[in-house]
Amino acid sequence: MSDGLQFARRIRTSPYFSRIEAHGVTGYSVYNHMILPKSFGMSVEEAYWHLNEHVQVWDVSVQRQVEISGPDAGRLVQWLTPRDLRAAQGGRCYYIPVVDSRGGMLNDPVLMKLADDRYWLSVADSDLLLYVKGLAIGAGLDVSVEEPDVNPLAIQGPKAPEVMASLFGSEIASLGFFHTGYIELFGTRQLVSRSGFSSKAGFEIYLDDSSLAERLWDLVRDAGRPFGMKPGGPNLIDRIEAGLLGYGNEMTRENNPLEMGYGKFCQLDGSIDCIGLAALQQIARTGPGRMIAGVKFDGPPCPSCHNPWPVRAAGEGGGQVGRVTSAAWSPRFRCNIGLSLVDDGYRDEGQAVNVTLPDGSERAGAVCGLPFREGG
Amino acid sequence: MSDGLQFARRIRTSPYFSRIEAHGVTGYSVYNHMILPKSFGMSVEEAYWHLNEHVQVWDVSVQRQVEISGPDAGRLVQWLTPRDLRAAQGGRCYYIPVVDSRGGMLNDPVLMKLADDRYWLSVADSDLLLYVKGLAIGAGLDVSVEEPDVNPLAIQGPKAPEVMASLFGSEIASLGFFHTGYIELFGTRQLVSRSGFSSKAGFEIYLDDSSLAERLWDLVRDAGRPFGMKPGGPNLIDRIEAGLLGYGNEMTRENNPLEMGYGKFCQLDGSIDCIGLAALQQIARTGPGRMIAGVKFDGPPCPSCHNPWPVRAAGEGGGQVGRVTSAAWSPRFRCNIGLSLVDDGYRDEGQAVNVTLPDGSERAGAVCGLPFREGG
Repeated sequence: MSDGLQFARRIRTSPYFSRIEAHGVTGYSVYNHMILPKSFGMSVEEAYWHLNEHVQVWDVSVQRQVEISGPDAGRLVQWLTPRDLRAAQGGRCYYIPVVDSRGGMLNDPVLMKLADDRYWLSVADSDLLLYVKGLAIGAGLDVSVEEPDVNPLAIQGPKAPEVMASLFGSEIASLGFFHTGYIELFGTRQLVSRSGFSSKAGFEIYLDDSSLAERLWDLVRDAGRPFGMKPGGPNLIDRIEAGLLGYGNEMTRENNPLEMGYGKFCQLDGSIDCIGLAALQQIARTGPGRMIAGVKFDGPPCPSCHNPWPVRAAGEGGGQVGRVTSAAWSPRFRCNIGLSLVDDGYRDEGQAVNVTLPDGSERAGAVCGLPFREGG
Repeated sequence: MSDGLQFARRIRTSPYFSRIEAHGVTGYSVYNHMILPKSFGMSVEEAYWHLNEHVQVWDVSVQRQVEISGPDAGRLVQWLTPRDLRAAQGGRCYYIPVVDSRGGMLNDPVLMKLADDRYWLSVADSDLLLYVKGLAIGAGLDVSVEEPDVNPLAIQGPKAPEVMASLFGSEIASLGFFHTGYIELFGTRQLVSRSGFSSKAGFEIYLDDSSLAERLWDLVRDAGRPFGMKPGGPNLIDRIEAGLLGYGNEMTRENNPLEMGYGKFCQLDGSIDCIGLAALQQIARTGPGRMIAGVKFDGPPCPSCHNPWPVRAAGEGGGQVGRVTSAAWSPRFRCNIGLSLVDDGYRDEGQAVNVTLPDGSERAGAVCGLPFREGG
């Protein structure tokens, strides 16, 4: 799998990698300094249907955990995010925007409270570990900030609960969305969450012992066989349809959580103390001016989106009102779909727009809400 | 170039990318969330000879700049590193290890002082921007920490001074190693340093205007034609021979600067205040116990090193005394060469060792100093 990408220790592989290679990985990405396996011989569209009808096992070790522990851990975690965590409890996952003093997104991890003085942030593609270390050192907080040897394995798709039930019993298989629990695995206790970067959130097992990785993979693979399980990875079509935003794709430091539709995760009434509060309050007063939305557009299947594609209001002399940052052809909706920031005044369902592709062609389209829906 | 690696906006391309594609890039890496072009049709060995005999142009936009400016900038920069910067001056580059409170390496940037209250850190492969932002916010420092739109272009190889002279005059072409100057370019003023990640340090132009990138590339390409210039990128053989260590390869957070041979960049007498000082003082007291060294070893050309390879003392029952983290076959020395941490007591020149390759084979070898030398 070393085609054009030249490997080095700097881009790590996970402890599941022997199994990934044995399955014949054909497509991958680089994420948090590691290889993220994405496809195994199937096209993105074939994998999309399989994921939506059956069940897949994903090596998502790239979701590194930032562990914050110690007497000041709770205080630091709240300071990190505008989300109100005063009532945060164990056994739950919390999606938390992390922003700098200007309100720009630095990461969008999932927080899990393991104890009153111990938290994990399951991070997207930036070195949040370094930011949190910097904050802790800078503020002289009494915490430890480290990246434990945790390598999550995801089981995703509608049959994920059946696979989990067959392996670990019906209780864990019936976890509610964004709830967590524990399983017994080869004599160890492992954290599991009902979550994942797919439309049909499955389960993620936060394996904390690399030496058990291959055994866990084989266990899951064997249990999945009756359910048609295949290896896979985050699927572009599926995540766009579901309106799942990707850090680095839909948002960077140039974006604030309000324009990403995360206002519901921002407590701006002054009752909590967090970094970026003043900046976000200011943005909230005037409104962000643009928000994330869906765009459906015509024509043959579009390429994948690398540099953002301009979105213009339809009609003579229509100015730019947005930019597509992720796009794919949806076999479900039989059209191209994209995620786009769209300016105020142009977000009504059905707003006619044109999307300019890298080859210069203009595609007629319409704005819609997220997630994408039939008839929307 | 989208073989196995699936592209998305999350892995950015540089403003030189149209030229990179036009030249037919064949090998690349991912570095600081961007594509790092590495080869253009030549084998690593062919590119090595060309780099060592002629001149190459490299797109090293992945070397992002962290700009620290404001009243507290100097104080923050000194706090970041154990290197004594009290006498740091404009017009010079400073290699500075950046460590956390345990003394673990977080990055190893090159520092340039642009003014008393404005610095650039030209960073290796980790989000140092986030760490510095965290420190600044945590400590409440009066600084701005941002990543400017700077995309360095490198001219490397023994004929680099001739190319620079033909383009920008003899003064800039005769810059001393790790000195900086300015050039006039299309009516703008651009920073240049005598530096680069090759054995024959050339020049790096820190282009601060993306819209000029293609014009700069073409200008350099045309000026390089009489000198046999070709596009290229950091070369594995060349950098190992020269003993140039790579962050993420030879060192991670698990390593301290003393074991990397950077003791000369660590002022530990207590006269400066920096993060990790106490930890480094403690390590210095006992000695790091292991240090980076070269290893030459026999047999056919080795593969590239992905997971570290054990190095054992030669002889019956020899225990592990090191681990190779980068390796290549050197056409100059006609043997394999590797960079390895080696334990105290086993670093004498010529110490016999065995290197275990991923296929399980043992290769007989010997420890040597860095950089690699004939007869060493």
